[in-house]
Amino acid sequence: MEPINNKLNLYSNNTPSTHGLHILLDSLGIDVQYHKVNIWVGEHYSEDYKKINPNCRVPAIVDNRDGQTIGVFETGAIMQYLTEKSGKYLPDRISRSKDHWETIQWLYWFNSSFAPQQTEFGYYHYFAPKDIPDAKERSHNEVVRLYKVLNDHLATRQFMAANELTIADFGIFTWLIYLKYGFLPSYNDFPNIVRYYESLEKLPLFKKEVDVVLASNFNNTKPKFV
Amino acid sequence: MEPINNKLNLYSNNTPSTHGLHILLDSLGIDVQYHKVNIWVGEHYSEDYKKINPNCRVPAIVDNRDGQTIGVFETGAIMQYLTEKSGKYLPDRISRSKDHWETIQWLYWFNSSFAPQQTEFGYYHYFAPKDIPDAKERSHNEVVRLYKVLNDHLATRQFMAANELTIADFGIFTWLIYLKYGFLPSYNDFPNIVRYYESLEKLPLFKKEVDVVLASNFNNTKPKFV
Repeated sequence: MEPINNKLNLYSNNTPSTHGLHILLDSLGIDVQYHKVNIWVGEHYSEDYKKINPNCRVPAIVDNRDGQTIGVFETGAIMQYLTEKSGKYLPDRISRSKDHWETIQWLYWFNSSFAPQQTEFGYYHYFAPKDIPDAKERSHNEVVRLYKVLNDHLATRQFMAANELTIADFGIFTWLIYLKYGFLPSYNDFPNIVRYYESLEKLPLFKKEVDVVLASNFNNTKPKFV
Repeated sequence: MEPINNKLNLYSNNTPSTHGLHILLDSLGIDVQYHKVNIWVGEHYSEDYKKINPNCRVPAIVDNRDGQTIGVFETGAIMQYLTEKSGKYLPDRISRSKDHWETIQWLYWFNSSFAPQQTEFGYYHYFAPKDIPDAKERSHNEVVRLYKVLNDHLATRQFMAANELTIADFGIFTWLIYLKYGFLPSYNDFPNIVRYYESLEKLPLFKKEVDVVLASNFNNTKPKFV
């Protein structure tokens, strides 16, 4: 688990949000030192991992590439860090101010609503030891509300923000893999989302991660969630 | 609800996260055109407000000050926008890289975990039409876990990040008002949080907002939440 010198160290596992980060890292052509954190046995709560991320969640990075050590956790913060360093997938703050802030706001929306509410949904629908119909229903309603927001937003757009591929797309796309393959029964109720998903899936690095998700996270028909 | 020209238009109400934004706006000395969105009667779902924020949540801003219109929603995105424009409360990305990313990561932590999990807690403990003990317990456990993360983090620090007051502090502070005044029964179980809260509460603009929260959101002993 010790970070390697002169490398970008990635602490991760097969969770919906981390898949988006994997595509971003691939797309940026970064040579990653991968550290698998075995969340299925609670390795994210170990004292060693707490030094990497005191919040005990994946993903996190320790970037040792440029003669100093920068550690970052939280998917959105890592995405901003990587893309501001590389100048890709985030429009310039000054020359394209409107596009820049449109991208950042949807990245926050992803991190503060879209991902955590689906995690709640996943818990109550797939993981909870007891059946709790009211909590199932609440999380279902909130996730459907968010999908409606997304579907409406995409009615007139090819990408989430700035009319181009940005960090606002990567994480949303990887949650949609789960939607398509059975997370909710209603993928086809959201035609603009379907169009968006299918167009991104044609990009080779996106398709590659879809295959990783399908190979690792699905047990025949049921998705596994964290 | 129509945004006013040459003004920073703020769409908001008395919710825990928006109070943090109010303190930030006060601290930056920005002259704000305030638009109260009456979330208690569902005004955030109106077609007019959807044009401001398609996700139908407060806060949101429409900044008409500099000859162009920039709309931003999501508390974290708005905070980044305001502070990058002003150069205050966020260490410089280049000259203080480590401090910059430390601030951004804790801002994301606030937006993706600390605030939404407390919203879940608030729902199940104060608002749910039925008593759902298992969901109450799950949300309680997660909120206590987050408070432990926060308490441990503050053991050796006066501020959340960068050894100074940053945008990582504002939102966290305003949720702690609710903690102190009865959101959880355990404020005194977190001594580092108590010290942090008390030191920030001494700042006049922070104290001013505490008084607003106490006047508007509490009905004698019970906090009201969104």
